[in-house]
Amino acid sequence: MRIDVAFSPAGLASHDAAGRPTFVVDVLRATSTICAALHHGARAVVPCATPEDAVRLAQTLGADVVLAGERQCLPIPGFHLGNSPREMTPDAVAGKTVALTTTNGTRALLAVAHAPHVYPLAACNFGVAAGRARALVEEGADLLVLCAGRDGAFGLDDAYVAGRLLRAALGGRTGRRGLNDGAIAALQLVRAYRDRWERPLRLSRAGRELVRLGLGDDVSYAAQPDTHPVLPRLHDRRLTTEAAA
Amino acid sequence: MRIDVAFSPAGLASHDAAGRPTFVVDVLRATSTICAALHHGARAVVPCATPEDAVRLAQTLGADVVLAGERQCLPIPGFHLGNSPREMTPDAVAGKTVALTTTNGTRALLAVAHAPHVYPLAACNFGVAAGRARALVEEGADLLVLCAGRDGAFGLDDAYVAGRLLRAALGGRTGRRGLNDGAIAALQLVRAYRDRWERPLRLSRAGRELVRLGLGDDVSYAAQPDTHPVLPRLHDRRLTTEAAA
Repeated sequence: MRIDVAFSPAGLASHDAAGRPTFVVDVLRATSTICAALHHGARAVVPCATPEDAVRLAQTLGADVVLAGERQCLPIPGFHLGNSPREMTPDAVAGKTVALTTTNGTRALLAVAHAPHVYPLAACNFGVAAGRARALVEEGADLLVLCAGRDGAFGLDDAYVAGRLLRAALGGRTGRRGLNDGAIAALQLVRAYRDRWERPLRLSRAGRELVRLGLGDDVSYAAQPDTHPVLPRLHDRRLTTEAAA
Repeated sequence: MRIDVAFSPAGLASHDAAGRPTFVVDVLRATSTICAALHHGARAVVPCATPEDAVRLAQTLGADVVLAGERQCLPIPGFHLGNSPREMTPDAVAGKTVALTTTNGTRALLAVAHAPHVYPLAACNFGVAAGRARALVEEGADLLVLCAGRDGAFGLDDAYVAGRLLRAALGGRTGRRGLNDGAIAALQLVRAYRDRWERPLRLSRAGRELVRLGLGDDVSYAAQPDTHPVLPRLHDRRLTTEAAA
């Protein structure tokens, strides 16, 4: 058993995800948004590297596509939705395919698209994701938890959520065997912030930036655990819930 | 006052170090080795990106150059010394210029060579470096602490040392204002490991790798604080102690 936590895609070698089930976390906000959309009935979420890619997808698939995403935390001109999980209401997304492009989260998902299983992770789907992670560890699988981070750098919000997943996946196991340096540090963050999801999210640069832009409600929303108990999975460049996959 | 900790050069934007005094830490082992060499009388240490660069420097400067460094933790064929601080004895380095090339540490130094002041940081020069960091903070300077990390990824050893510097630089200040996410996490590591320098160094992948290669004594040596109380500074691509600069 080996579990690695990578704090951003920047230092990731292409073999790091090879053959390993991978959880990707961008709790503020892309993976929270993905879970909200799928929980509220979206048929699929397609992570797109650029706004142009998203528009191209909409041109191909037609009226059933909802364009969503952000640049510098703000909605993209001409898009239907931003990157807020609060916008992913059943009215907005049920039965639709959401083409989502964000600064860090969708890039992280695309960076590990070759991994055998890629699961978006957030607070809102924590219990379901943790159950899967624990089952994988019990089967003896090696896991990678990839934090989206922020422009290639460490993000406190994602690192904390990664640590939570790790602690749940390890169950009662102690010791540091099989854990990389990122995993050990992420567990220390969980010891520091314990069950207070919102604390590290508010302290993080991503959280502070959202508050500054008047989007503090997104931070509170994304900090609530288990509000959208779905386990999306990336398959053929589309995220769907496992049942629908 | 702003203090950023970057956990590796991989996610560093070129403007991150612009105008900011920068501490670079690769405690296992490059910055420990640099301090040991200068404390034991080396005239200068020149960080070289590649073994070829180091050899070229020796060809230019002649007999006063000592070639030192590692690849995959091991000495480079044809070089006089490896990258062990224990090798930097007065006999080996006094009066010489050390051309040093290592996998992570020298690359981190070169990545911020444009910063106004670049100081190598390790446990062995901790007190002196912390004194300088504290004075800079009191002057209102913005600091960057760059961890060499490991192949672009997070290293527990460097992150802990970065946190120690930060705590010392902040003195009695509390609150997280002006700290980036990396700085906040590094301080949490200090809360976790307290004054036990050797614990995070031994837990880190770099430390475990050195032990595996029979170089565990290097870990113990590098974990001792204040054994080489020098403050090297990078100037014109050469590291010298400040008095000699």
